[in-house]
Amino acid sequence: MSLLVVGSVAIDSIETPWGKAKGVLGGSATYAALAARLWTPVALVAVVGDDFPKQALRLFDRKGIDRRGLLSLPGRTFQWKGRYQLDGQVRTLFLDLGVFEQFRPQLSKSLARVRHAFLGNIHPSLQLAVLNQLRAPKLTACDSRDHWIEQERSAFLKVLKKVDILFLNDAEARLFTGASNLVEATRALLRFGPRVAIVKKGEHGVLAASDGHFFSLPGYPVSRVIDPTGAGDAFAGTCLGLLASQKRKSWKALCQALLTASCTASLVIETFGPKRLIGLTKKDLETRVKGFCVFSGVTLS
Amino acid sequence: MSLLVVGSVAIDSIETPWGKAKGVLGGSATYAALAARLWTPVALVAVVGDDFPKQALRLFDRKGIDRRGLLSLPGRTFQWKGRYQLDGQVRTLFLDLGVFEQFRPQLSKSLARVRHAFLGNIHPSLQLAVLNQLRAPKLTACDSRDHWIEQERSAFLKVLKKVDILFLNDAEARLFTGASNLVEATRALLRFGPRVAIVKKGEHGVLAASDGHFFSLPGYPVSRVIDPTGAGDAFAGTCLGLLASQKRKSWKALCQALLTASCTASLVIETFGPKRLIGLTKKDLETRVKGFCVFSGVTLS
Repeated sequence: MSLLVVGSVAIDSIETPWGKAKGVLGGSATYAALAARLWTPVALVAVVGDDFPKQALRLFDRKGIDRRGLLSLPGRTFQWKGRYQLDGQVRTLFLDLGVFEQFRPQLSKSLARVRHAFLGNIHPSLQLAVLNQLRAPKLTACDSRDHWIEQERSAFLKVLKKVDILFLNDAEARLFTGASNLVEATRALLRFGPRVAIVKKGEHGVLAASDGHFFSLPGYPVSRVIDPTGAGDAFAGTCLGLLASQKRKSWKALCQALLTASCTASLVIETFGPKRLIGLTKKDLETRVKGFCVFSGVTLS
Repeated sequence: MSLLVVGSVAIDSIETPWGKAKGVLGGSATYAALAARLWTPVALVAVVGDDFPKQALRLFDRKGIDRRGLLSLPGRTFQWKGRYQLDGQVRTLFLDLGVFEQFRPQLSKSLARVRHAFLGNIHPSLQLAVLNQLRAPKLTACDSRDHWIEQERSAFLKVLKKVDILFLNDAEARLFTGASNLVEATRALLRFGPRVAIVKKGEHGVLAASDGHFFSLPGYPVSRVIDPTGAGDAFAGTCLGLLASQKRKSWKALCQALLTASCTASLVIETFGPKRLIGLTKKDLETRVKGFCVFSGVTLS
């Protein structure tokens, strides 16, 4: 079953304590789509400017990502430059939304019939517009960020009434729920509508809650994080890609998807930009999943 | 096989966002001994003043803790008063070392022959003095804290050459190794001597490393932490108690001990002081371990 991936496609410049990368392919939809395409057919819905490199378009084609929903508008592509500190905190040095400011996702008839959707971190009113265009959604998920949670809370609340799965990171979950304890915060997210709440804790792993269920997974042990960019989007992309590929959406299937998603994220952060994700194979992931089970004692199958 | 538990026995007053407890039994050796006694005979080596409540001595007796190594000196018992913030950080409001300042652990002949020892957070030169008195140690472990790591580094380094297992929390491991990445920090601890390094991450669980092995466990999901006091000592006490009770010290046995130790710690923090630990049974722990395996997907047996 296909997966719609809606979000940003950008050009990133990244500085970390371990080096720099200039003008690499970025954006929430890019990372999510590149991760999800290993598991299910992916249709990308985003916008780029007329400066967007042809070779990046060809990359999407080569990876089997349907880009009929990738609009090209006259103007500049979304650009972001950020610098990570040793503790993983990031500071935005430069931001140019470019044509992304005019992004009003319009689904074609065929895209509106896609049953699974991941809405990356964009304005909640745009996420809502996509949700309202879906004809027969089976599983929908969204991510968000501190800015929307604080500044666009009412639109965000409307999104939460409609999505099945909510992804937030630890700081966002605390900010949104007001709960300092993360177990409490994860469970509290369910009260706002989603059937499943997933809280990403970076190096410390992930928490997931659903009515009557709770799951906790440590992070895959990575001893040198080169670039955290896109890890959360690749995580969500893997999770949705895997779930879209399966008929039965059980709690166990979700837990298994989170484990594989953690492994994807752990590979993404070991190199700059989406490089590792571009070359990633199912076999690479299987190897890492096996290692993860040894490191963590987890057996889910 | 018996376990020697060396450390502080104190009277604590604790304030947390959820309430207060005044004049409760505390100290690293208290928590470690109360946790370990479920699994193996425990001999306590510590010092108290002549103001130490008789009922606390009777408690040790009732719990089968050998207190022939618990010295009573004229003067006041170690007193500590602390206030925890919502984020789990603690501030010391009052500290009176009392007779603890004169603590120079002297093992009797029979105690010196005990094969297993846990050295709680005390001055590294005192930990070293105990290690040097042990006749035929089979498994030794120590904890420490930021103050000793920074101010008494050379004595601490000598301890690390002698102990088998080192317990530190995340901040201490970073401080001591200079590595910001916790996976790297955990592995780096091994270079200083111990065969096993265990890094406690509070709500985020625990990391453990040994030559060729790595293990990562999430925290048991506790939605309301009432009082974190003693959780780390109860964790180490459970771990050592379990290992002391087993003939074969395999990596798998250590991982299993860490899982049970995490469950002990999760129970300790749900009430003020050592209350939960005093009433704790193996059955309570078995129930929580089962729940933990469901929450985490971990199977070790």
